[in-house]
Amino acid sequence: MPESKLSDNRRAGGVLALAGGVGGAKLAVGLAEILEPDALTVVVNTGDDETFYGLHVSPDIDTVTYSMAGLANPETGWGFAGDTFNALETLKTLGADAWFGLGDHDLALHLRRSELLRSGMTLSEVTLDLADKMGVQHPIVPMSDQPVRTIIESGDGEMSFQEYFVHRRSEPEVTGLRFDGADSASPSPAFKAALGSADAIVFCPSNPFLSVDPILAVPGVRRLVAAALVPVVVVSPIIGGRAVKGPAARIFETLAHKPPSALAVAEHYSGIATHFVMDNEDESSRQAVEALGYQVLVTETLMTTNKHKIDLAAAVCDMAGVSV
Amino acid sequence: MPESKLSDNRRAGGVLALAGGVGGAKLAVGLAEILEPDALTVVVNTGDDETFYGLHVSPDIDTVTYSMAGLANPETGWGFAGDTFNALETLKTLGADAWFGLGDHDLALHLRRSELLRSGMTLSEVTLDLADKMGVQHPIVPMSDQPVRTIIESGDGEMSFQEYFVHRRSEPEVTGLRFDGADSASPSPAFKAALGSADAIVFCPSNPFLSVDPILAVPGVRRLVAAALVPVVVVSPIIGGRAVKGPAARIFETLAHKPPSALAVAEHYSGIATHFVMDNEDESSRQAVEALGYQVLVTETLMTTNKHKIDLAAAVCDMAGVSV
Repeated sequence: MPESKLSDNRRAGGVLALAGGVGGAKLAVGLAEILEPDALTVVVNTGDDETFYGLHVSPDIDTVTYSMAGLANPETGWGFAGDTFNALETLKTLGADAWFGLGDHDLALHLRRSELLRSGMTLSEVTLDLADKMGVQHPIVPMSDQPVRTIIESGDGEMSFQEYFVHRRSEPEVTGLRFDGADSASPSPAFKAALGSADAIVFCPSNPFLSVDPILAVPGVRRLVAAALVPVVVVSPIIGGRAVKGPAARIFETLAHKPPSALAVAEHYSGIATHFVMDNEDESSRQAVEALGYQVLVTETLMTTNKHKIDLAAAVCDMAGVSV
Repeated sequence: MPESKLSDNRRAGGVLALAGGVGGAKLAVGLAEILEPDALTVVVNTGDDETFYGLHVSPDIDTVTYSMAGLANPETGWGFAGDTFNALETLKTLGADAWFGLGDHDLALHLRRSELLRSGMTLSEVTLDLADKMGVQHPIVPMSDQPVRTIIESGDGEMSFQEYFVHRRSEPEVTGLRFDGADSASPSPAFKAALGSADAIVFCPSNPFLSVDPILAVPGVRRLVAAALVPVVVVSPIIGGRAVKGPAARIFETLAHKPPSALAVAEHYSGIATHFVMDNEDESSRQAVEALGYQVLVTETLMTTNKHKIDLAAAVCDMAGVSV
């Protein structure tokens, strides 16, 4: 039974990693390679979840799960490796506005998730069950079992994250963000437990605004992280002023009114994180980040191979004093 | 707009064909080849509809639609030609009890149908829209827009039609049938209109108990067919004591307590049909069927090629006095 992963017998401690999509998933893979299943909890953003054709799609959970299962498309970092798109092709023929690229294998995951949710299981239970069926041994946990939806405010009006990111290709200028439903949501049970027991908390290199902030917006989470007596390690998703993937860089300009940089990331998390990992390319900002009160590690952070993922995960654990 | 097919400008008259799955679809294809779109209405059994993974599946409508669109799998007569089963494969991996063989293209149809139904469209409107998108010009109409479900009563208990037919491979002995919901259902609007205006009514060679009886069970239908002043033509699905496909033959034994035969089919419909088409192989029963009051045509009824479908359709129309 996968539930045993989250049982009371689960050893306290270990690493609590907060992740969004592709970048977060890469570090989660690295952490899973060096930590035992009972020493890592990966909590994932669900602000991007959306309903397509009546199916509950959890893009970040899927990306993390496929990655940790070794099933992710290596070209894109998301989606199912070698997936086909026959259903999508027919959906278009039948007149559906099929802008969200659901592969056939991927579709099965959404069908099954939706069916299990309808049967009364929580998103936490469903996520764990599906990951287990895909062979993932480390617990993957949604940030909340209640719906929280990231709404993009832009010059073109308000839209869901997927509408902005996939349908509109991140083109609208983001002028604001809000997390609908966050006020009445709670951290998922396993997230809450990990917040109280982790030896270290790691912010994976995911978009601060769109991937990590929704997690922090769940009531109590920001406070518990800030009050944690353990290292809170941020791995910068910005390298040399650029986002490795996605719209994070442009969003820094419009939401934080500053150029994207490792320093800007450090400023964003100032007050809740204690440790900061940045790329060699950003070495020159080291002192400025240290001046914010962070303990800083400068290392190679771009994860293009599995070895990079493991090395970065090991560096993060070492910095946080977590034995592997 | 596909709705125009059913508009008030639609010419009264033409053929009203009642069909179930594969056999009915074959004759419907033949009729569509020789009749204009405004001279044929194909009304399809929905007693076999079922929900899989939260999706509304209408197996007989799909078989008729795929067949009339030229998209049906020629090997089986049902399903989408050349379909792949990648989603199904993953559903099994994820622990779903995936005994109903949904192909990937097929799945898209069910997703789209379910989405349109949720949007508030009736099953009639959705069926017409989807058939139109697949290039079908003749109207395909569900027997009712309300749910009617064929329940198989057997020595192994009660079960849905798909559970009996697909999951249990027609193995349980059918001891009774009922059509849940029929009492509170109405004929679909286009079915009702065609019942009042058709120049001929044709019972396609489908299972009398499982495909045609559910249609006749919709309140008012049996009475309107019996009272029709136009030819009501039955094409026997039993040839030489055997069903071309499916469990019809065995069901005659257990439900009608007689061996399957063209004569048994004629007896089944006695009182509501006026004309009977049977295979050359059953020539010896001609007089017995005529003695029931039928006008009889003996011809080749097995439809293995498109020419067979057209020839049989032409013979049916000729017998019914419908000009083509």
